[in-house]
Amino acid sequence: MSRGYFIVFEGVDGSGTTTQSRLLASHLREAGLPVTLTREPGGTPVAEKIRQFVLDPSLEGISPMSELFLYAASRSQHVAEVIVPSLDRGDVVICDRYIASSLAYQGYGRGLNLEEIEQINRLAVGECLPDATIYLTLPVEVAWKRLGQRDSADRLEQTGMALQEKVARGYQEIANRDPAGLVFDAQLEINRLAERIQGALRRRWSWFPEEKK
Amino acid sequence: MSRGYFIVFEGVDGSGTTTQSRLLASHLREAGLPVTLTREPGGTPVAEKIRQFVLDPSLEGISPMSELFLYAASRSQHVAEVIVPSLDRGDVVICDRYIASSLAYQGYGRGLNLEEIEQINRLAVGECLPDATIYLTLPVEVAWKRLGQRDSADRLEQTGMALQEKVARGYQEIANRDPAGLVFDAQLEINRLAERIQGALRRRWSWFPEEKK
Repeated sequence: MSRGYFIVFEGVDGSGTTTQSRLLASHLREAGLPVTLTREPGGTPVAEKIRQFVLDPSLEGISPMSELFLYAASRSQHVAEVIVPSLDRGDVVICDRYIASSLAYQGYGRGLNLEEIEQINRLAVGECLPDATIYLTLPVEVAWKRLGQRDSADRLEQTGMALQEKVARGYQEIANRDPAGLVFDAQLEINRLAERIQGALRRRWSWFPEEKK
Repeated sequence: MSRGYFIVFEGVDGSGTTTQSRLLASHLREAGLPVTLTREPGGTPVAEKIRQFVLDPSLEGISPMSELFLYAASRSQHVAEVIVPSLDRGDVVICDRYIASSLAYQGYGRGLNLEEIEQINRLAVGECLPDATIYLTLPVEVAWKRLGQRDSADRLEQTGMALQEKVARGYQEIANRDPAGLVFDAQLEINRLAERIQGALRRRWSWFPEEKK
């Protein structure tokens, strides 16, 4: 590979994007590939600071548009500082959430204009778009139960089930029109899901490593 | 007045935008007009938090594009929460810095694409543009001396004289093509400058209060 590959995980809160990002990264590393595993919002010290800032419950009252710009700030920093340099040196970059999260949460979830979200994100990321996006789908009730079992309850996750439903519907529409999208059922057992994802990527890309025996 | 008037002060650091904003607000209040005096970045609790965040020296390493989005976040919140509601109830809104600051500092100063700055700001403010912008001009050496006398030295002001020169040139170009722009020499004595500004606004708008005797 001269330029690396850019793989994004997306899905509602509780769908397991973080777990599956890590499992894919481990699989590729074990096969000897150079991997950069990162996440949004965050991914660099400055972008992580912006992430902490956005998630701070004391920012209650922030307008959805303002929130969108904060995420764009974090994303822009992350792309310039981490994603593009990693791709340039040939890494497989695996990112937990990216532009589709803004479309799903701020657009479908909070009702911001989808076209404006796309414009802002195009400005934030330039040409840096995913080669594959893996969408993990989960019925809202199941996602809700999974979240209830977590200790943390940050501002995003306090906003309720109605939002989660809109977000889930949004992800469905986004996935349906994404030519680089792959959709999986997040209710599969964790390792089985990881294998399914690897299988799909293996069929798509000849460089993707063989199945573990 | 049914809808209020929106007046913005702009100029390099040290040019006195804050002082002159306050003097104009006092003058209008003494004449019995409803005034909202505000500033950027900031202007609301949430936007002020973003302001504090942007000015934090620990954000060193932030990309100019990311910084631009942070300012857009602050501005978007400020417009939605303060400026538009104040104008809607008929206030004269006086704002210390607005879009021209982003063009001057991020565009001319740090070399970001001016067209992209305008796109982002258009998304952040919608239709909310100033009815008058007052540009205070100051030779860079004078501005530099004034700043040297201040105790505070936040991140913006640490970035040096070369930046200030680019910003000053930028403001000149911005003012020259702003049909709602008024340009004043910031080296005038403070109260004399305030009177000049009031005089110019009085000639422009019939509602503007008489000169103090």
